[in-house]
Amino acid sequence: MCAIAGAFNVQNASWVVSKMLLAMQHRGQDGAGITSVSGTRLLASVSGFGLVDEVFRDVDFTHSLPGFCAVGQVRYPTSGDKHSRNNLQPIVVRRQSGDLALVHNGNLTNAPKLRKGFERNGAIIHSSSDSELILHAMAHFGNRDIVAQIEAACERVEGAYSTLILSPNGLFATVDPLGFRPLSMARFGDGFLFASETCAFDLFEGVSDVQSVLPGTIVAVRPGEEPRVCRYASAPWTRQCSFEHIYFARPDSEVFGVSVHAMRERLGAALGRRNTIAADLVIAVPDSSNIHALAFANAAGIPFGFGLIRNHYTGRTFISPTQKARKLGVRMKLNAVKSVVAGARIIVVDDSIVRSNTARKVQRILREAGAREVHMVVASPPVTHPCHWGIDTPERRHLIAAQIPLTDLATHLGLDSLTYLTHPELLEALGDTPGQRYCTSCFTGKKPAVCSRAV
Amino acid sequence: MCAIAGAFNVQNASWVVSKMLLAMQHRGQDGAGITSVSGTRLLASVSGFGLVDEVFRDVDFTHSLPGFCAVGQVRYPTSGDKHSRNNLQPIVVRRQSGDLALVHNGNLTNAPKLRKGFERNGAIIHSSSDSELILHAMAHFGNRDIVAQIEAACERVEGAYSTLILSPNGLFATVDPLGFRPLSMARFGDGFLFASETCAFDLFEGVSDVQSVLPGTIVAVRPGEEPRVCRYASAPWTRQCSFEHIYFARPDSEVFGVSVHAMRERLGAALGRRNTIAADLVIAVPDSSNIHALAFANAAGIPFGFGLIRNHYTGRTFISPTQKARKLGVRMKLNAVKSVVAGARIIVVDDSIVRSNTARKVQRILREAGAREVHMVVASPPVTHPCHWGIDTPERRHLIAAQIPLTDLATHLGLDSLTYLTHPELLEALGDTPGQRYCTSCFTGKKPAVCSRAV
Amino acid sequence: MCAIAGAFNVQNASWVVSKMLLAMQHRGQDGAGITSVSGTRLLASVSGFGLVDEVFRDVDFTHSLPGFCAVGQVRYPTSGDKHSRNNLQPIVVRRQSGDLALVHNGNLTNAPKLRKGFERNGAIIHSSSDSELILHAMAHFGNRDIVAQIEAACERVEGAYSTLILSPNGLFATVDPLGFRPLSMARFGDGFLFASETCAFDLFEGVSDVQSVLPGTIVAVRPGEEPRVCRYASAPWTRQCSFEHIYFARPDSEVFGVSVHAMRERLGAALGRRNTIAADLVIAVPDSSNIHALAFANAAGIPFGFGLIRNHYTGRTFISPTQKARKLGVRMKLNAVKSVVAGARIIVVDDSIVRSNTARKVQRILREAGAREVHMVVASPPVTHPCHWGIDTPERRHLIAAQIPLTDLATHLGLDSLTYLTHPELLEALGDTPGQRYCTSCFTGKKPAVCSRAV
Amino acid sequence: MCAIAGAFNVQNASWVVSKMLLAMQHRGQDGAGITSVSGTRLLASVSGFGLVDEVFRDVDFTHSLPGFCAVGQVRYPTSGDKHSRNNLQPIVVRRQSGDLALVHNGNLTNAPKLRKGFERNGAIIHSSSDSELILHAMAHFGNRDIVAQIEAACERVEGAYSTLILSPNGLFATVDPLGFRPLSMARFGDGFLFASETCAFDLFEGVSDVQSVLPGTIVAVRPGEEPRVCRYASAPWTRQCSFEHIYFARPDSEVFGVSVHAMRERLGAALGRRNTIAADLVIAVPDSSNIHALAFANAAGIPFGFGLIRNHYTGRTFISPTQKARKLGVRMKLNAVKSVVAGARIIVVDDSIVRSNTARKVQRILREAGAREVHMVVASPPVTHPCHWGIDTPERRHLIAAQIPLTDLATHLGLDSLTYLTHPELLEALGDTPGQRYCTSCFTGKKPAVCSRAV
Repeated sequence: MCAIAGAFNVQNASWVVSKMLLAMQHRGQDGAGITSVSGTRLLASVSGFGLVDEVFRDVDFTHSLPGFCAVGQVRYPTSGDKHSRNNLQPIVVRRQSGDLALVHNGNLTNAPKLRKGFERNGAIIHSSSDSELILHAMAHFGNRDIVAQIEAACERVEGAYSTLILSPNGLFATVDPLGFRPLSMARFGDGFLFASETCAFDLFEGVSDVQSVLPGTIVAVRPGEEPRVCRYASAPWTRQCSFEHIYFARPDSEVFGVSVHAMRERLGAALGRRNTIAADLVIAVPDSSNIHALAFANAAGIPFGFGLIRNHYTGRTFISPTQKARKLGVRMKLNAVKSVVAGARIIVVDDSIVRSNTARKVQRILREAGAREVHMVVASPPVTHPCHWGIDTPERRHLIAAQIPLTDLATHLGLDSLTYLTHPELLEALGDTPGQRYCTSCFTGKKPAVCSRAV
Repeated sequence: MCAIAGAFNVQNASWVVSKMLLAMQHRGQDGAGITSVSGTRLLASVSGFGLVDEVFRDVDFTHSLPGFCAVGQVRYPTSGDKHSRNNLQPIVVRRQSGDLALVHNGNLTNAPKLRKGFERNGAIIHSSSDSELILHAMAHFGNRDIVAQIEAACERVEGAYSTLILSPNGLFATVDPLGFRPLSMARFGDGFLFASETCAFDLFEGVSDVQSVLPGTIVAVRPGEEPRVCRYASAPWTRQCSFEHIYFARPDSEVFGVSVHAMRERLGAALGRRNTIAADLVIAVPDSSNIHALAFANAAGIPFGFGLIRNHYTGRTFISPTQKARKLGVRMKLNAVKSVVAGARIIVVDDSIVRSNTARKVQRILREAGAREVHMVVASPPVTHPCHWGIDTPERRHLIAAQIPLTDLATHLGLDSLTYLTHPELLEALGDTPGQRYCTSCFTGKKPAVCSRAV
Repeated sequence: MCAIAGAFNVQNASWVVSKMLLAMQHRGQDGAGITSVSGTRLLASVSGFGLVDEVFRDVDFTHSLPGFCAVGQVRYPTSGDKHSRNNLQPIVVRRQSGDLALVHNGNLTNAPKLRKGFERNGAIIHSSSDSELILHAMAHFGNRDIVAQIEAACERVEGAYSTLILSPNGLFATVDPLGFRPLSMARFGDGFLFASETCAFDLFEGVSDVQSVLPGTIVAVRPGEEPRVCRYASAPWTRQCSFEHIYFARPDSEVFGVSVHAMRERLGAALGRRNTIAADLVIAVPDSSNIHALAFANAAGIPFGFGLIRNHYTGRTFISPTQKARKLGVRMKLNAVKSVVAGARIIVVDDSIVRSNTARKVQRILREAGAREVHMVVASPPVTHPCHWGIDTPERRHLIAAQIPLTDLATHLGLDSLTYLTHPELLEALGDTPGQRYCTSCFTGKKPAVCSRAV
Repeated sequence: MCAIAGAFNVQNASWVVSKMLLAMQHRGQDGAGITSVSGTRLLASVSGFGLVDEVFRDVDFTHSLPGFCAVGQVRYPTSGDKHSRNNLQPIVVRRQSGDLALVHNGNLTNAPKLRKGFERNGAIIHSSSDSELILHAMAHFGNRDIVAQIEAACERVEGAYSTLILSPNGLFATVDPLGFRPLSMARFGDGFLFASETCAFDLFEGVSDVQSVLPGTIVAVRPGEEPRVCRYASAPWTRQCSFEHIYFARPDSEVFGVSVHAMRERLGAALGRRNTIAADLVIAVPDSSNIHALAFANAAGIPFGFGLIRNHYTGRTFISPTQKARKLGVRMKLNAVKSVVAGARIIVVDDSIVRSNTARKVQRILREAGAREVHMVVASPPVTHPCHWGIDTPERRHLIAAQIPLTDLATHLGLDSLTYLTHPELLEALGDTPGQRYCTSCFTGKKPAVCSRAV
């Protein structure tokens, strides 16, 4: 998971991008970077590990990242070489045929094969991330127009890629044919903004014409021209990530053209309508499950309350004196309100269960605060398979729903009951026909069919 | 506003204090500091500007802040000399008669007079904060027992002071006779914890016997002894800060021995019961008004929803390229959920209105998101007077309710209507008889009578 | 040891002071600080641990240290509480009667007694350094004129003190009655500069009227007035530090009104004239002994050469992986030129021997590089006693000349011979009658008689 | 200019390399980096801008740069993209066929052509430095043995390159066929050290068998084997950089197998023997000209003195308040000793004149200190052409000797006279036949003939 953002023909472009990244910080707290271009001048970059606020705290944008066009990324810790600066984005390359900066959200599924092939031809690949491979796939057509280079690269790379490529000649947005990850664009004054989530556009007054970059298309914005959309592939279906609606995206965003808040209400309501648990109170695991929980409570006819409080200042874990001390972790994040919880039969709603750490700790915190019963309702189906398209889900052996029979799971987690959304309920809430629009591989294990690139 | 914390006879005491400060970070983000004592050794200190996480990120507590006793503070930017390191706490002094470290929450009302008197006697006062004056008031009795020194100091200082004083001989907690600011203590293993809010105790398993440090008392904890409580003053009334319940404290805390969440429910419900506005939805200004708003909605019989989303990563404001750019400020913090707000008649509940910046911006954000009507309900009376006892309220000329007639205020703020809690309603919700328990000076302008110190 | 500097009525005063401190960085690498005053405004300060370059690297002087008057200090690691920020200078105090910033070079000999007395009167002393005591000695007369306050303080403090005191009303330079440590002043445009060494003045064009601040005087410079000199004590003798000429001061400085370079030539020549060692080459322990060595070579009629090279980039010692690795220390600093040293009979001249670490290592390096004989000539008498007036000499048990009989010392250090300057030779070279002008206590152990303060 | 160092089969290899870099810090203060390899594990790297001391201050070598083999570099600010992290060395690439780290001293003369060719074949070049091109030239033969890869690369790259390449399989040192830049190696315990200058070896006890890596050879050191030398090219002449002897190298080093100190003596003596200027004193521009000046003085029969003092703490230039202030620059570095210079006829010896900034300022400083006459003697011929092989000489229009007729130069610089070494004198002092051993292109403009690579 990560977020990308871009600004084209916008005053203080790099500063505008930094603000958009800040609005999408929930998608990645591991590192951030921005590259700007000023006229035909060389690209300037600033990147580093940590939060956007930390990386750009002392940066004078006007001086260090000048110009009217910029792209940026916030990243999630990736597997492998976490602390290599080479893996920070934007990836910038200097070429005789024109410099490029790339930001990428997603994962390529044929990365090892591509890497081997490029090296066999004498290429040197600096990072261990797969994002650089997109540039290598473009490089063999370095003398063509950039859109043609991108098209050629899309012929070779497989998997999930929403990318922004910045050159002194324009800004180029691409989404893979199956559209795994969201990318939107909007008009801003005489220029354009791009972002993974639309909440990034809401920061600014005067934004209009918000729309998605469609799967299988390249949107090219160049100085003095209207954006041109080039369709390089078409598929009869898409594989948009259902987890964006369930958990990742901010509720005030639209992703894939749909309100996240509305989707979460439908997920919670679906569960609430069929609820049979007798309880005094419904509470959320804040903040990501607030909307699911409120919708559940309303549909089930049980009062909603704020029984868990989240501390937003937990920051990084300090160097702990002892192993034992480190266990305090989640207690820093969540605390129960005793006056609400004590003596009550509680239904706690969470958006999903992956490893089960949170579920376990929430149960314990509520019991210690005096809850009489603790029932958990999960607004998504059991997560049984890892994701290959850009979500940092763990291997199967760490997915609790893949390890413990569902019938034993409530007992295993110390809960009075455990209710999951079903896969059909999920599809219905999302308004999808199976296999048409959304990827639900992490719940089913079914790989999406690769679509043909031919238009 | 700020928070103080202490640990006595506790393993990794300084690390435990750092965690308690983190739990109370909402009370002050400007600076943080911790001092520890190891046996009879000199006191070690670490302090700095910024968040707890920033100040202590690279600190090895075992090495830099060793020992079984520690005190710490997070501070709010104070008036005057904001960036002077001398104003950071703990204030540490080295004396022949024994070293001391002090942390202080509150404001002395006779600081200028005290300062003048001490200087006339040849004292040198390093900081511009009034906290140091407490130590000077103790210094003239440097050869007495510390409790006697503190008692003597309490004879001279006036105003609000909840303090922790750490020496190699013990930890000493004091609250002023009128008890303006909260301070609690609890048993933890063989030792004791102290904190401004009880949410700090909830981090740790095995905490028990949570209780308030009472107004007019000094609690002395010394090695190998049970705590001793010394009453140095008694008053027939107290002046506990009502704003703690309205806004400052975390809802999962108890302050002054009462649940903050329960108080907020009563404030919101009092308004909801008498509501006459026809509306489609009640929303909160998150997160501080969540509970008031939900209670209001329930009492008024109007649905509650999450119509405003708060971004918790706004961090510090970067160096903005232009003045104009800086105006984006609040948009970073709050955004409306269009699918919720559009076309609806909205009641937005806020805990209080001070300068009116937030009210103004919330109104604008909701209108732009398509709200048909925007009514504001405020869960406290109009703030018309500054606070002299430790809350950073601005001068009267910046208090909107002191400048604009209440009848014009809704129009002035662009609201369809504006409803305040009344002062009698506040007292009733707090369960107080006027002038008995809570300070409501910021709503009435009435100074509390200074009580006699005689027991 | 340390250095102090001041600028009065000078454009960019704090920046000018930073440059003067940089020119005197050899006098203290442990910390640095500057305080400036702008009109009647509060004093602004920046200080920190490390080199001047490190402390002020990111400081915007115009913004952070504005004004036309400033004082600063570079400090040597002092005993006791090395890492306490409270011990950094300038020491700044805020008083009703006017704020003050103090920088101090020297050591008070009655510090413990003073400290006890002040505390008995209720004073709170923040630092463990004795410099703060000067301000406490002034504080009891806080309502008098500053010169009168300083005079009163000089009545009470004993030992070595060259100080600069900055207030919004002027800059005040004081040297103790015996004049242990140097302090000079000069005219610069319409303003004045003060510095421990005159090399600091040579940075700027337009400096004139360089002169010493005399022992027992206070020089007061105030806006719109010529400097006034107030003599508060007179003595028939002084105790100016002879080690300033031998080792501390830069050779391009004048201290106590005399050229350091000229003095070093006289020290080296005195030894050279009586030399009887047959040698092929004279070399210096660079850079502090260069001048002594060249003068020795010329007087002795033996060629001078550059046989040892100093690496100026040794910086701080990194965290070494093993204890054994740490022994590489001096090899980083000094290396022999094999083509010069191999096969030769070498006389190596050093300014002084304190602990003998350098002598030992120089001997080993030269032998390993192939020197046939290594004779050492020392341009000062044996250091047998610690200094109580501001030089960081170790206790007697670490002074090699106090521990090993002089007759055995050459053997002990692995030298073919070892020659010291005698005490009479030192006095003659310095042009002094015993007990008249220079302090040579570290060679004799004789304490200087305290002079009466009466004029 | 820069320096490279390596350690193979040496305990704490990275720490040892850091110390060698510190000993060669004079060759580049802009940035530093080290890469180590531990067994067959991935390469770990630390690099950054600034001095070695700054980059590695907080690095725990054992933890962050583990292993028994390491390479490192200190770099000089290069033209173009100064602040790009991509240009820091070691350059590390991760390849299926094995990871590599490269450090490079020198400049490739066919870089633009190479870059174009590689890009035409689809390569992506990350840095703007030419060092990365060596790796690209190797990459097409990625499946061969590393020595064969290096040989193949040497077929394609032209110009100056002394490189160290580290892989998990060994350490490989290469010098170009004409041997422009120095590189030495030595035995250290069971392992080996490599460094640009031999002074780096002198830090450690137990170093032996110091020798040069010869032009046109690759030295391969692999675990459990003696070093193997592979000659891949031979030439009847070399082009070793004469400026290494004149200015760059430390005098305690051997470069190209010859003592730098001895060479400098011969340069100074050649000028001294033919001196006709009547003067009272010879002084050096410290420290780089000390040896030339002393040798000149001895040969000319004029006394040598220390008339200029260098401040080694000048550090980085701070942010200066005004443009005017910035002019103080050199005064920070050099100061005259008035007691030495006043009234004297001075000959000041400098190693070379490039832009003439130093010459101009030295002249002014000496005149202001009272020198009666200032004659300058330069221990190298006039620098009239830029260098294409790795020395950061400016373009011709900034070379004073290329712009002002030599007959006018003394007047232009305000000198009483100006004497240069002649080109024949230089060659004679270096012991060279024209065109045989040393490159003197910067004095003559003659490009060295490229030698055939065939053995």
